[in-house]
Amino acid sequence: MEGGAWSAPGGPPILVSEYIEISLFRAQRVAERDSGERMGGASGTSMERANPILPTIKSPADLRRLSVEQLEVLASEIRAAIVSQVSRTGGHLAPNLGVVELTIALHYVFDFGHDRLLFDVGHQCYPHKLLTGRLALLDGLRTRRGMAGFPEPLESPYDLFRVGHAGTGISTAVGMARGDTLNGEAFEARTRPDGRRVVTLIGDASIVNGVAMEGLNNAGTLKRQFLVVLNDNGMSISKPQGAVSQYFDRVRLSTLYGDFKKSAHRILKHVPGGSVLEEAYHRMGEATKAWVAEDSWFERFGLVTVGPIDGHDLRTLIEFLTEARDFDRPMVLHVKTIKGKGYGFSESDSSTFHSPPAFSVDGEMVSEGCRVELKREGRSFTTAFGEALLSLMERDERVVACTAAMPDGTGTTRVLERFPERAWDVGICESHALDMMAGLAKTGYRPFFAVYSTFLQRAFDQAFQESSLQGLPVRLCLDRAGLVGGDGAVHHGFCDVALLRTLPGACLLAPIDEPSLVAGLAFMRQYEEGLSAIRYPRDNVSARLLDRECPPFELGRARCLTPEVREPDAAILAFGTPALDALDAAAALAPELRVAVYDARFAKPVDRALIRSLLERRIPVLTVEDHGVIGGFGAAVLEAASEMGLDASMVRVHGLPDSWVFQDSRSSQLAEVGLDAVGIARQVRALAASAATTGSARSGGSALSVPVSSGPARAIETRPLETRSGVSG
Amino acid sequence: MEGGAWSAPGGPPILVSEYIEISLFRAQRVAERDSGERMGGASGTSMERANPILPTIKSPADLRRLSVEQLEVLASEIRAAIVSQVSRTGGHLAPNLGVVELTIALHYVFDFGHDRLLFDVGHQCYPHKLLTGRLALLDGLRTRRGMAGFPEPLESPYDLFRVGHAGTGISTAVGMARGDTLNGEAFEARTRPDGRRVVTLIGDASIVNGVAMEGLNNAGTLKRQFLVVLNDNGMSISKPQGAVSQYFDRVRLSTLYGDFKKSAHRILKHVPGGSVLEEAYHRMGEATKAWVAEDSWFERFGLVTVGPIDGHDLRTLIEFLTEARDFDRPMVLHVKTIKGKGYGFSESDSSTFHSPPAFSVDGEMVSEGCRVELKREGRSFTTAFGEALLSLMERDERVVACTAAMPDGTGTTRVLERFPERAWDVGICESHALDMMAGLAKTGYRPFFAVYSTFLQRAFDQAFQESSLQGLPVRLCLDRAGLVGGDGAVHHGFCDVALLRTLPGACLLAPIDEPSLVAGLAFMRQYEEGLSAIRYPRDNVSARLLDRECPPFELGRARCLTPEVREPDAAILAFGTPALDALDAAAALAPELRVAVYDARFAKPVDRALIRSLLERRIPVLTVEDHGVIGGFGAAVLEAASEMGLDASMVRVHGLPDSWVFQDSRSSQLAEVGLDAVGIARQVRALAASAATTGSARSGGSALSVPVSSGPARAIETRPLETRSGVSG
Repeated sequence: MEGGAWSAPGGPPILVSEYIEISLFRAQRVAERDSGERMGGASGTSMERANPILPTIKSPADLRRLSVEQLEVLASEIRAAIVSQVSRTGGHLAPNLGVVELTIALHYVFDFGHDRLLFDVGHQCYPHKLLTGRLALLDGLRTRRGMAGFPEPLESPYDLFRVGHAGTGISTAVGMARGDTLNGEAFEARTRPDGRRVVTLIGDASIVNGVAMEGLNNAGTLKRQFLVVLNDNGMSISKPQGAVSQYFDRVRLSTLYGDFKKSAHRILKHVPGGSVLEEAYHRMGEATKAWVAEDSWFERFGLVTVGPIDGHDLRTLIEFLTEARDFDRPMVLHVKTIKGKGYGFSESDSSTFHSPPAFSVDGEMVSEGCRVELKREGRSFTTAFGEALLSLMERDERVVACTAAMPDGTGTTRVLERFPERAWDVGICESHALDMMAGLAKTGYRPFFAVYSTFLQRAFDQAFQESSLQGLPVRLCLDRAGLVGGDGAVHHGFCDVALLRTLPGACLLAPIDEPSLVAGLAFMRQYEEGLSAIRYPRDNVSARLLDRECPPFELGRARCLTPEVREPDAAILAFGTPALDALDAAAALAPELRVAVYDARFAKPVDRALIRSLLERRIPVLTVEDHGVIGGFGAAVLEAASEMGLDASMVRVHGLPDSWVFQDSRSSQLAEVGLDAVGIARQVRALAASAATTGSARSGGSALSVPVSSGPARAIETRPLETRSGVSG
Repeated sequence: MEGGAWSAPGGPPILVSEYIEISLFRAQRVAERDSGERMGGASGTSMERANPILPTIKSPADLRRLSVEQLEVLASEIRAAIVSQVSRTGGHLAPNLGVVELTIALHYVFDFGHDRLLFDVGHQCYPHKLLTGRLALLDGLRTRRGMAGFPEPLESPYDLFRVGHAGTGISTAVGMARGDTLNGEAFEARTRPDGRRVVTLIGDASIVNGVAMEGLNNAGTLKRQFLVVLNDNGMSISKPQGAVSQYFDRVRLSTLYGDFKKSAHRILKHVPGGSVLEEAYHRMGEATKAWVAEDSWFERFGLVTVGPIDGHDLRTLIEFLTEARDFDRPMVLHVKTIKGKGYGFSESDSSTFHSPPAFSVDGEMVSEGCRVELKREGRSFTTAFGEALLSLMERDERVVACTAAMPDGTGTTRVLERFPERAWDVGICESHALDMMAGLAKTGYRPFFAVYSTFLQRAFDQAFQESSLQGLPVRLCLDRAGLVGGDGAVHHGFCDVALLRTLPGACLLAPIDEPSLVAGLAFMRQYEEGLSAIRYPRDNVSARLLDRECPPFELGRARCLTPEVREPDAAILAFGTPALDALDAAAALAPELRVAVYDARFAKPVDRALIRSLLERRIPVLTVEDHGVIGGFGAAVLEAASEMGLDASMVRVHGLPDSWVFQDSRSSQLAEVGLDAVGIARQVRALAASAATTGSARSGGSALSVPVSSGPARAIETRPLETRSGVSG
């Protein structure tokens, strides 16, 4: 790690050792405030400031040499390191601050080189990464050269699954538990005390996701050790939703041992699951016995429930985890934590600081009164969408909306506040959300479901059955479509067009900027034939076409963005925001090639008249999209050409490759896959060259003079090539 | 209904009036056995035999003119009508027999012309259809001319949603409840007693599906009437799975009122949900108060739970539903029923009689000892797969398997019996199943997940995250791929290739017969690069190529099924069993055209060398698949051609249209969409004619002599055109 360069906000790069000292200063104050007398004088000595603990943790084994007091100092150092990094680059903050002690305790008690640790969602893995030898990767957080923001098996064998979508941890853990058992490697208290244990860390927002509950229901049938650690921060990503979260709220956080002790035994006789739980009770240690929860939701699923316990008290955590470690039946350890723990700003606004962009802090970070400014630049599609939806709802009282636990992420926060009767946050329940929207459509409403493209994958079957098969007009507003930047492979939205295109009656749109987003939403509001979806990226809206009129959307009609040329050397047919990069590419190519650029607007139905016109005139066509090349917009163009019996050998499909694109800034990723202006220009040049070689271009073209677009034919400004990505990856 | 022709098993068509008399004779015996003294002499009179009640029920309003005794007779008539029909044509039997009284009581108490009735799954809707004016459609059950086997809004306004996939009823009901509330039409005891009520009928297998639990969690937040009727038959489709089902088993069916009465009030004070439930309790009627269930799983979700009550006792059902009707908070009415109720054979083997093909009964149907023979003809892909998987598991102890509540449907019953340690039925939890399989892959096992193509849609996101993104080799065995016959639109598997093709590293196969199914599975066993999937239809395996050697699968290599012709007039590139129909088509076309037929074997990766060879030689190519034309195998061929810069204007993609194909026999459906030999021949002829017209066919072909297939080049028998569908629709 020596020599690794870190860069402080606004300052010059500093070396790791300096950085650690600076952060330790802050960490110390937090530790003092939090741990009070337990911290005592020991951790406040200049000795420790000069000798930070975090850099000495090369693997979790190093934790076991530390005292609880030293672990508490380590917790503060981890917090400081994470805040410092996220303030510079953005990233998941509050979820990680909340699980620092819990993660330390887990690694202290278990040996996850041997035992299995499954993260649910995984955005809370930073402390885990710092404890498993990845401190040196922290300064490259969420970029290719550094630490992924989610568990990443390529980084470390301590990361088992590359995750990011919620609710799957218990199910994969059930699979690994069954596998270890089959392998004869499973922990068993009497016969195999050195066997592998299985632990899942899951949050209270995830636990009510359908997959998680399916996992719980099946975990309850296991006859072996299986620990679910419920990280209950009562905040989830946004506010927790649903009846079960209210139930969790009612579970009292007791600070006295033995509160439940007297009644625990009696209770176990009566809960469903009965004799198994009763038997299990006898194998518990004294501490856990004392904390068996009365009438637990989890016991209905067949899991003994212990807790809730204080998730920031290392002694308690270590004690309970030590007892739970050797329990040979499925168990839930209910841990109460504070999301954003350790800093006033992140504790008090953990939604904003769930996954903030870079930010600066004015004043002492640990105090409640410090001023924190997020470094947001430009106007995002998310913001533009939120305002457009608000406006629709103001003008049309039949419009209703929902989000699945992502009000900030989808721009629907204000909609939820303004129209509490017509807008809902249903929690991390995408499947339920889509079905509920279909029910509302059935009663005559116009539902808009704002969801990340990648999370829509959870609701494909509902889009199929409840919307498309019924012909019910559910509107999907797909944020984070295409490459998403730092969240990496697990969050890219590269399948939505391929998935939704299979559905009869579906109508798929993409805007290129804010006016076309507004126009697209207006079109969808009136589209009543069936499912419709509009997709837009995690990026800023461009202002470059604001001086032009944006024509309304007409079903299956593209828009020409360039001055009409009768016989261009090539045409770019772009779906979504790459159309603007295509304009840049066309401008750059202008000296050598006349390139017509079309904003396709629809991936279903595609503009068949335009495709026919271009191909019959033998104009080479490049289709461009921020979506996978498999089954996407370009594929739809090829299918349409084939259906019309047209020669599509001069069509090239350009989009996301059939491979994983890992974390980095969105602009870097776009450049990597050639979806920036430079990459598009390169493709056009190659296509034109190929057309010239085969000699087919325009050689056999008919003299069609069909007007191929309703778009205006004014000249556009030519600008130097640049990337548009203003939203930090 | 007069004059409608019904056909008794093996006999000549009979008129409805005759039929009703015959069925009444049987129904009477059931009624007598079931209702004992309550039936009394009244219902046994010849008067009633001559005047069956069922034909007099034109709408549910007619029910309210009947006495409970008459309703019981009606129940018997409904059972008899359903059994008679299903014995002749196949269909869902046991689920419908189980809900006869429950359905009568629901329609007796509610007015579903106004109130909302949502079916979950929907295969239990036959009694509902018979009570809502559709008796005349019964004899065309599951065909285009008759009654759909699932709710069908085109048939009746009493059917709200076209369903078939489990778990969605509560969520859509939540949406409709919210919509009715927004419309000011919702029932409210004091202010709007004539408002609309919402009722969902859901089974105990569905309730633990992820979507259903997401729905419950959100339903618990409603502040209005919302009734969930839990049809708990303790059998589900197969045996119930998971810990919650064990919980249901423990809930005692009490026959004495007041058992819970004393404790109910006390309990409500302590359950989570607390004061709301306490308040709700006060609004209950006396009967429901008496039956409030202690410590209910549902109460954790915020729903008051009443029951369990006897689902075959009409008086009790009507009494409880009447009280529940006016309760203005979310409530679960837990109803115990017997799946297959009314006949010995269906009660004792409700799995076999869940959705049997036609069958004959030897002996008196109501007796326990009658002999029932299923009319299964030929050997299905399902059976062949089950045996192949069993064989793999016998030879390779690393092979593990699972099904999501479909052991019979996927052919895995014997596997589950033979290898209880390595095979699991996880219940209707497709998402969990795939994740569990990924966990097992991570521990070194070779998991095979047998699932219907259409239900895989529930696990796409898990295929994406837990298998593809990790590169973990989960094997999907997709039964019911393509058109499924009588189950209709909601069960066709027309998206799987389009969905899975988007996933990096995925490998997609299809067999054409049993030897190639076995060879394909052997290939998948060894394929460790990532996700793989094999798809096969709800059809019989063909024996026509059994005299040939079936070469092993090689990644991305097609197989030539016809004698090698250097310059054929056209080539058919077929994915899956349509390859055999293509052979028939080629044989029929032989006098006019030389047609080469290829068994594509892979939809990902496609055989690029073959495609290149065919297109460079300018041979017209018809791609054929029993899958949607959007994003499917043919689309993959077009994409590959485009990537190679080849002219694909002579490629036609033939498959399922971008529209819904409704219930009918599979062979009728295949003929309808032109996926039989006749339809394929028609396509080839048109393609060849088009090629001749444009003059491009072979005119510019290069003289390539690349061997394009590893397949044998022996002559095949030519046979008259026929359809292969032996499995009844």
